[in-house]
Amino acid sequence: MIGQEMFRVMDRAQALERQGHHIYHLELGNPRMAPPPDLIEATMQALRARHLGYAPMAGLRELRVGVATRYASLAEEALTEAHVVISPANLLIHQFLDITCDPGDHVVCFTPAFPSYLAAASHLGLHVTAVPLAETESFQLTRDRVNAALASRPRAIILNNANNPTGALYSPAVVKELAGRCEEAGIWLLSDETYADLTFDGRFTTLASAQARHVVVMSSFSKVFSIPGFRTGYALAHEAVTAKLALSNSTLYSCLPAFTQLGCLAGLTVIDEYVADIRARSARLSGTCADRVNRSGVLRCQAPESGFYLFVDISRTNLDDMTFCRRLLDEQHTAVTPGRSFGSAYTSFIRLATCGQEDDVLEGVSRTIAFAQNLGGCRVQAA
Amino acid sequence: MIGQEMFRVMDRAQALERQGHHIYHLELGNPRMAPPPDLIEATMQALRARHLGYAPMAGLRELRVGVATRYASLAEEALTEAHVVISPANLLIHQFLDITCDPGDHVVCFTPAFPSYLAAASHLGLHVTAVPLAETESFQLTRDRVNAALASRPRAIILNNANNPTGALYSPAVVKELAGRCEEAGIWLLSDETYADLTFDGRFTTLASAQARHVVVMSSFSKVFSIPGFRTGYALAHEAVTAKLALSNSTLYSCLPAFTQLGCLAGLTVIDEYVADIRARSARLSGTCADRVNRSGVLRCQAPESGFYLFVDISRTNLDDMTFCRRLLDEQHTAVTPGRSFGSAYTSFIRLATCGQEDDVLEGVSRTIAFAQNLGGCRVQAA
Repeated sequence: MIGQEMFRVMDRAQALERQGHHIYHLELGNPRMAPPPDLIEATMQALRARHLGYAPMAGLRELRVGVATRYASLAEEALTEAHVVISPANLLIHQFLDITCDPGDHVVCFTPAFPSYLAAASHLGLHVTAVPLAETESFQLTRDRVNAALASRPRAIILNNANNPTGALYSPAVVKELAGRCEEAGIWLLSDETYADLTFDGRFTTLASAQARHVVVMSSFSKVFSIPGFRTGYALAHEAVTAKLALSNSTLYSCLPAFTQLGCLAGLTVIDEYVADIRARSARLSGTCADRVNRSGVLRCQAPESGFYLFVDISRTNLDDMTFCRRLLDEQHTAVTPGRSFGSAYTSFIRLATCGQEDDVLEGVSRTIAFAQNLGGCRVQAA
Repeated sequence: MIGQEMFRVMDRAQALERQGHHIYHLELGNPRMAPPPDLIEATMQALRARHLGYAPMAGLRELRVGVATRYASLAEEALTEAHVVISPANLLIHQFLDITCDPGDHVVCFTPAFPSYLAAASHLGLHVTAVPLAETESFQLTRDRVNAALASRPRAIILNNANNPTGALYSPAVVKELAGRCEEAGIWLLSDETYADLTFDGRFTTLASAQARHVVVMSSFSKVFSIPGFRTGYALAHEAVTAKLALSNSTLYSCLPAFTQLGCLAGLTVIDEYVADIRARSARLSGTCADRVNRSGVLRCQAPESGFYLFVDISRTNLDDMTFCRRLLDEQHTAVTPGRSFGSAYTSFIRLATCGQEDDVLEGVSRTIAFAQNLGGCRVQAA
């Protein structure tokens, strides 16, 4: 779920493609790296072996054991399969809010924020309080922002570390303080760690805990393995919470396919070697793109610390995000995401995704910069 | 989703299996026939070809065209891909109720009814009015029952034709009258046609319509192709409704895998030949099992007209459904579904699923009958 604005961009991009134009796709976090061969082979093997029936509602036990073992090591905590539920990550946001909140409750999101948080909250009749992170503070989560979030006395807080769209990685001390204070105050905390596997320095701060009763960690195999089409993610939480999430799975969609889960299990056995390459590639390509943006004289962005997004400040172009996106698509055949998808305040930002084919990404970034320079060239020189 | 009672049966069955016992599984509609080879091959081919990214929120266009073409022919109506949305069938029940009803609204289910209707309605805060179909009328949908449903002035009605658990196939005239009167009255109608492909005489009454503004048809590839693990179903409705369902897909889970949809598309091209064999097999095996039940002297059921379920009246055993299921599992290692899963009134029924391995099904039915006869033998002779 990427917001209504985004659909308009994608519809227009598709219309141009039907007219025969090549479009540079920097709008979606649809990674195009090659997944681990073992993952695809295990999926096909499971299909051949006719794993085609219903699977357990909480997810395949073997995969839950695999996830628990990995996070036990990362968190240095005793975690077992009882602390893990398999479900599509996008749906887990919805399921978390559904089991923890009642209609009318308040939820805090630190912004800019992944649009699915806002969409899920809105769908469930929840009010979202945006606690904005400051561009002047590199979009970092500060103690000040933690205090602001807790002071609004929400039912739940959603944290996204590392962050989509800014690529910021938060201080482990501040993140752990947030979790501890949520636990004390009985405030639910969803820690979305989908991009924690992709930090450029290999640092991975997880809040996964068997003891914490109000902290739910979620992540996805989509980005780390370049398999968004598998629609497979997972949550780690106290057993009382995983039991509710498993029941929610059962009520909503019964179970996930066994063969996709067996594929993810095979991926998990090679994740450390595999992800080292992906991290190096992401760091290099995101870094190159961020440098170009920041040397453009008209656009600027933070150097990301994880993932493959750049959150680009376009304020010097004097165009709002929707106009920028529409004209960039029409004039330069380059699709990017308008900033307002990540919170209504971000109309002078766009998001670039650098996870596509490398040549396409570099050309799309060049076109975005050229478009902005042609617009704002005189003004920049005058500044 | 098969109800809380069912989970208890399955937990106990698993415990016995862990102790090394062979369990005869007649509790789940988890068909074990071989799917069309083309379907599995196309799924693997799509994995090899790296169809691993995001897919359109409404479902793959090719699959939507395939479904529309098939139903256009069945319904003798002009239907296009704009009238089709792909989504897991179990979730579609939830999505239908979510987009058509508000919390507190009334929904009618004809009972006995598939437990997911009751679970989805309960999850969304809706009140369910059960309109029971009479065992003495072979659980048929009569004009009388249609009148009763409409007289309660619900926001929505859920119809399941052919029916799970009774195997009854309703009169096309009565079903069409229900749809027409819902349309006139502005009452939403969900027509779950998951078992319409499996009628023993090949008759297929669909309510799919491009014109009707309040009628939503849903079905699934799970049962017809023996691939419940694919979690792929579809809805057919007016464009205004499919647009809302597609947005619901996007909000909840983004999209379904492309490779499973491409597999289903390959299945759709061979469905007519394939399903002829499945129907013949189901008719023969269900018929044999129903005959044995009805010759038992203590159990009885309607002869099913579709699918693979038998809804068996156990009242002559003087055991309630939960006790019957628990003891049958412990004493005869045979798992069946308690009747109350299909509505609170059905405590003197059990459901047998005859879609497993044939030898296991026949042995499980024999054990069920033997168990009932050993309980009720004296009483039956006295009757």
